Amino acid sequence: MKAKLTPIRGSVTAPRGFRAAGVFCNIKRLGTGKGSNKGKKHDLALIVSEVPATAAGMFTTNQACAAPVKVCVEQMKKRRAQAVVVNSGNANACTGKQGLRDAREMAWFAEAALGLPQGSVFVGSTGRIGVTMPMDNVRAGIVEAAVGLGSTAAHAAQAAEAIMTSDTRPKQVAVQFKLGGKTVRIGGMCKGAGMIQPGMSADGNRPAAMPLHATMLCFITTDAVVEAKALQAALREAVANSFNRITVDSDMSTNDTVLVLANGLAGNRRFGAQSPAFNQFKAALSHVCLELAKMIVRDGEGVSRFVTVRINGARSFADADAAARAVANSPLVKTSWHGGDPNWGRIIAAVGYSPATIVESKVDIGYSAPGSRKILWSLKRGQPTAATFKALCAAVAPREFDLHINLHVGQADALIYAADLTEEYVDFNKGDVSDPGSLGG
Amino acid sequence: MKAKLTPIRGSVTAPRGFRAAGVFCNIKRLGTGKGSNKGKKHDLALIVSEVPATAAGMFTTNQACAAPVKVCVEQMKKRRAQAVVVNSGNANACTGKQGLRDAREMAWFAEAALGLPQGSVFVGSTGRIGVTMPMDNVRAGIVEAAVGLGSTAAHAAQAAEAIMTSDTRPKQVAVQFKLGGKTVRIGGMCKGAGMIQPGMSADGNRPAAMPLHATMLCFITTDAVVEAKALQAALREAVANSFNRITVDSDMSTNDTVLVLANGLAGNRRFGAQSPAFNQFKAALSHVCLELAKMIVRDGEGVSRFVTVRINGARSFADADAAARAVANSPLVKTSWHGGDPNWGRIIAAVGYSPATIVESKVDIGYSAPGSRKILWSLKRGQPTAATFKALCAAVAPREFDLHINLHVGQADALIYAADLTEEYVDFNKGDVSDPGSLGG
Repeated sequence: MKAKLTPIRGSVTAPRGFRAAGVFCNIKRLGTGKGSNKGKKHDLALIVSEVPATAAGMFTTNQACAAPVKVCVEQMKKRRAQAVVVNSGNANACTGKQGLRDAREMAWFAEAALGLPQGSVFVGSTGRIGVTMPMDNVRAGIVEAAVGLGSTAAHAAQAAEAIMTSDTRPKQVAVQFKLGGKTVRIGGMCKGAGMIQPGMSADGNRPAAMPLHATMLCFITTDAVVEAKALQAALREAVANSFNRITVDSDMSTNDTVLVLANGLAGNRRFGAQSPAFNQFKAALSHVCLELAKMIVRDGEGVSRFVTVRINGARSFADADAAARAVANSPLVKTSWHGGDPNWGRIIAAVGYSPATIVESKVDIGYSAPGSRKILWSLKRGQPTAATFKALCAAVAPREFDLHINLHVGQADALIYAADLTEEYVDFNKGDVSDPGSLGG
Repeated sequence: MKAKLTPIRGSVTAPRGFRAAGVFCNIKRLGTGKGSNKGKKHDLALIVSEVPATAAGMFTTNQACAAPVKVCVEQMKKRRAQAVVVNSGNANACTGKQGLRDAREMAWFAEAALGLPQGSVFVGSTGRIGVTMPMDNVRAGIVEAAVGLGSTAAHAAQAAEAIMTSDTRPKQVAVQFKLGGKTVRIGGMCKGAGMIQPGMSADGNRPAAMPLHATMLCFITTDAVVEAKALQAALREAVANSFNRITVDSDMSTNDTVLVLANGLAGNRRFGAQSPAFNQFKAALSHVCLELAKMIVRDGEGVSRFVTVRINGARSFADADAAARAVANSPLVKTSWHGGDPNWGRIIAAVGYSPATIVESKVDIGYSAPGSRKILWSLKRGQPTAATFKALCAAVAPREFDLHINLHVGQADALIYAADLTEEYVDFNKGDVSDPGSLGG
């Protein structure tokens, strides 16, 4: 039985017992030592539970993972936490031992400011790679955020803004549903934009059929009572079907992080992974992750098209995944999407060079509206159909569409949420060498 | 003993006994049925030996390989041929059974026009994918080319122009050297521009540590007397160290082809793979392939930077290759090159998400002039060096530079010749939907 999910306002402060704040402490400016300070966007956030919470996390599998990721992985062993401190403007990645000291100090300082025991605060960072943290600013920010905590949607929105880098808008979602008669809430916020093809795991081991390529950060709160292992299992599956299935630019970040805090204030009966309640909770968590993941693709750097690449009929999931990623990351396919060009030749070429087994004379390629099964096929069994070029152009003209590729060599399916490649992406990322150290992690 | 190579003028007609021609037969225009016919660039070439020649070839490992590739692979079993017919404007890829019939007919028609026996002409195509060949034009072109054959450098230049698609200039090279007292010549021409990351093999089996991603076509002639197996072995190694080590946009074409015809008119003593002459010949062939391969990268679509990515100290060649390709194909690294931004954070992130084993605290990253060992290090053992941002910017400002990455975890090395990613690339490839069927294979 699937629980009915009701969208509610806000994000991380929607569940009972969570407070948040976002403040400006000038992390980016001091990171470079110069430059103007346009916008004064919030750049440090705190998310705090009233009571200790059960924690779960998924982290980048990039071998050059950032200091805050290392600190989180270490603290996650306890599966308990009460708060998260996170900054934008500096990724604290590739910062060596000093970086690790700084990440730990961020946690300790937040613990002190919040009056929490040691080991109860997770840390997240995103922004420039290779620049050490401006710790004076961070400390000032934490103090200011700690006194500014609140449980309104406005407080959550400040926090969601504080984690943005090249994002053009904050990304938040919250739902509520019934679990054994109790109302449970899950709220989440995230950021993305560039360096986006997460491949997260709980332990640093890259999952099979895994992406090779954003910083995406996501912080989720819930008032559910849930066993720690069940929370991690639900998160693993939710991430596998959401954040780990998106790509903006095929680059995997050093900082990708998804954290969940479950503080138990909903008062539902505690459940494990074998309970029917688990499936209901997992469905809700998956929904939150998927909505946030899609927001990341839609708001990717320079993105003008959101394309769901659906591979069917592959020999194995690994094949389906590889074929979908080859198409989703092909510069020639992505530029054709940008141009509104239904160029199936580039698509079949990408599938053909992917590690997936294909037989050219069996491949179908078609388009539909998002989620629709009404498909306009451009290629059937390797042969162009009677669909007119005009009709195919119309199918790929919308900002969002689904690309269907049936390999007809097996039963396995996979999908990837992908974006086009635009001149704006190149222009944004070619950097401004008058401003050393562009965004990276 | 390495033979001294002397550059000579021209390309495929430089060796004794070869003639060539390039003509305009309007293949592209009739491929779409409409559109103007600007430029009237030559679009069909013939290369013909006076006498039967020993042949060798390397072909795309894309599973959706084009009909002319299938025909070449089939004919290559005999390791003998006397001519090549090749067109631009239409890739004859993803054209099903009709495509295969057309590719065979191109060969047969050329054989008839040239008065050669059946099975003596190879076929190559590049251009649009998924459009059947305008065979009336092709036949007219072959007849015109056959009567226009000549052995001057101007004839070779016509042929080199005829195979161009989005190339801005023809690509030709020729050398001569002494082999046992006889002068041997090797000449080659090629085309590239987009869909460039070849991964060719002789048999369709992808080599280990292989690219996943141009149409590049390359036709090489030589007057050497060489055993068929030795010719194939020399070509395999030459391609492995040249065309299979380049990437423009990480897309592997359906049509990548390298063919060599060795007609024996130099009169040197026939040699096999065990002979000292083999190494001299292989060095010369490798030189020709590498010069042509680099021309492809330099003239890639929208390319403004040519970067040699050198990985040292990897655990295995597969690791070194994977790390080099991750860096060379990272959109974020490529856009930073375009911007002249020495962004080592993106580089270490790419190496970190590659399948290669790395230890962040061991990685060195630096820059030099092409081929120079005078390296300006930006990162040593995972830590930023004292090199100033200004000095690093100066190192990546030139149109060509080397990027050195030492992983310090083993002894294996690999390099990839790479290009940047520019707004021009995106603009060119987003296509013109008023002109259906953009370039692909």
